[in-house]
Amino acid sequence: MRAAILDKNDRLAERNRGFFRARGLLVLNFLSSPGSGKTTFIRESVRKLGPDLKTGVIVGDLATDNDAERLRESGAPVVQITTGTVCHLEAEMVGRALKALDLTGLNLLIIENVGNLVCPASYDLGEDLRIVLLSVTEGEDKPLKYPPMFQSADVVLISKIDLAQACGYDRDTALANIRRAAPKARVFETSAKTGQGMDAWREFLLQKHQERQSLDPLA
Amino acid sequence: MRAAILDKNDRLAERNRGFFRARGLLVLNFLSSPGSGKTTFIRESVRKLGPDLKTGVIVGDLATDNDAERLRESGAPVVQITTGTVCHLEAEMVGRALKALDLTGLNLLIIENVGNLVCPASYDLGEDLRIVLLSVTEGEDKPLKYPPMFQSADVVLISKIDLAQACGYDRDTALANIRRAAPKARVFETSAKTGQGMDAWREFLLQKHQERQSLDPLA
Repeated sequence: MRAAILDKNDRLAERNRGFFRARGLLVLNFLSSPGSGKTTFIRESVRKLGPDLKTGVIVGDLATDNDAERLRESGAPVVQITTGTVCHLEAEMVGRALKALDLTGLNLLIIENVGNLVCPASYDLGEDLRIVLLSVTEGEDKPLKYPPMFQSADVVLISKIDLAQACGYDRDTALANIRRAAPKARVFETSAKTGQGMDAWREFLLQKHQERQSLDPLA
Repeated sequence: MRAAILDKNDRLAERNRGFFRARGLLVLNFLSSPGSGKTTFIRESVRKLGPDLKTGVIVGDLATDNDAERLRESGAPVVQITTGTVCHLEAEMVGRALKALDLTGLNLLIIENVGNLVCPASYDLGEDLRIVLLSVTEGEDKPLKYPPMFQSADVVLISKIDLAQACGYDRDTALANIRRAAPKARVFETSAKTGQGMDAWREFLLQKHQERQSLDPLA
């Protein structure tokens, strides 16, 4: 049963991927534990990207549209997916949400997944890049304890770096554990509050968007 | 399929419950996001309870036995369940783990679930009390965004209260949201690091253990 669901999801994810490429959209899937700071980070990213990359956001939650409201403060168009009891986003939900999003002129689509460090790892949404957030408050061992999520990451964003000292965050151990679980992932150390690391993150997205434009869309 | 799994789980949870009651064990199921501080809190609770309540621990993780090692520092007997890719503990896993735990003289069994604020809410393990941790670093809105978990809580433990100021934690909002999502839950505000709130928590457990002894085991 689960295999059949995943198989169907993989097919619909490829359809999303084709759709995104035809529109020249760079698509990011943001994943993390609840409370790692996804919403704040995305809001500040959209502000920082300003007119260079026009961004739309799809956000998933079990309940409430609190995050959609917070994301709209960035000025981006936002569509909320309310999953009820479903613990992850699926490609089909994203496909439906796309119909409610005005894609005119968009360069970047950010999908904020349900806060869950386990289940969403199994569901391809058709994204170009998986961005896994790890807050310094969560403990340095999380990459080893949640291997499927970190193994699937293209980028690991260390968030809330401004709280590092208050939490007794051990940077060397955290980076070593990320390297072990996700050897190929790009790592950014960031604070949406102080702005630390946000310029490097912005440069990275501009470059990825550039690369996307020069790729064969059906490759 | 999911209904059948849950139905089977509910039956095996009742069997666990009967077993626990026959042994006079008070059983707690600890649930939270990854990184809310479950392991540290349990270790400090066991130390605090000392000889008054002899405690055993069953701990679930996708991978690694890091938490089991940390919990053994408390002196308690600990059994690790490694779930692989399964995002929650099930009653059957707990039943199997019980065979590896020396129950002689135990008064209290603490089950540390997989770090996940969604899926474990659906799986009864046969526990007496569900303890949901919410760290001050996660944001005050989590009780509203993850209703199934908070609605099922008998106790909400606010953890890492020592970081409240560094995080800009809004206590009134957090307590109001907990009240809305879990109106009957007991709330404790704690820090395993500074010891704040740990005496009240200890008194609560001693009283609950006392009550368990005077209950009809098959009621």
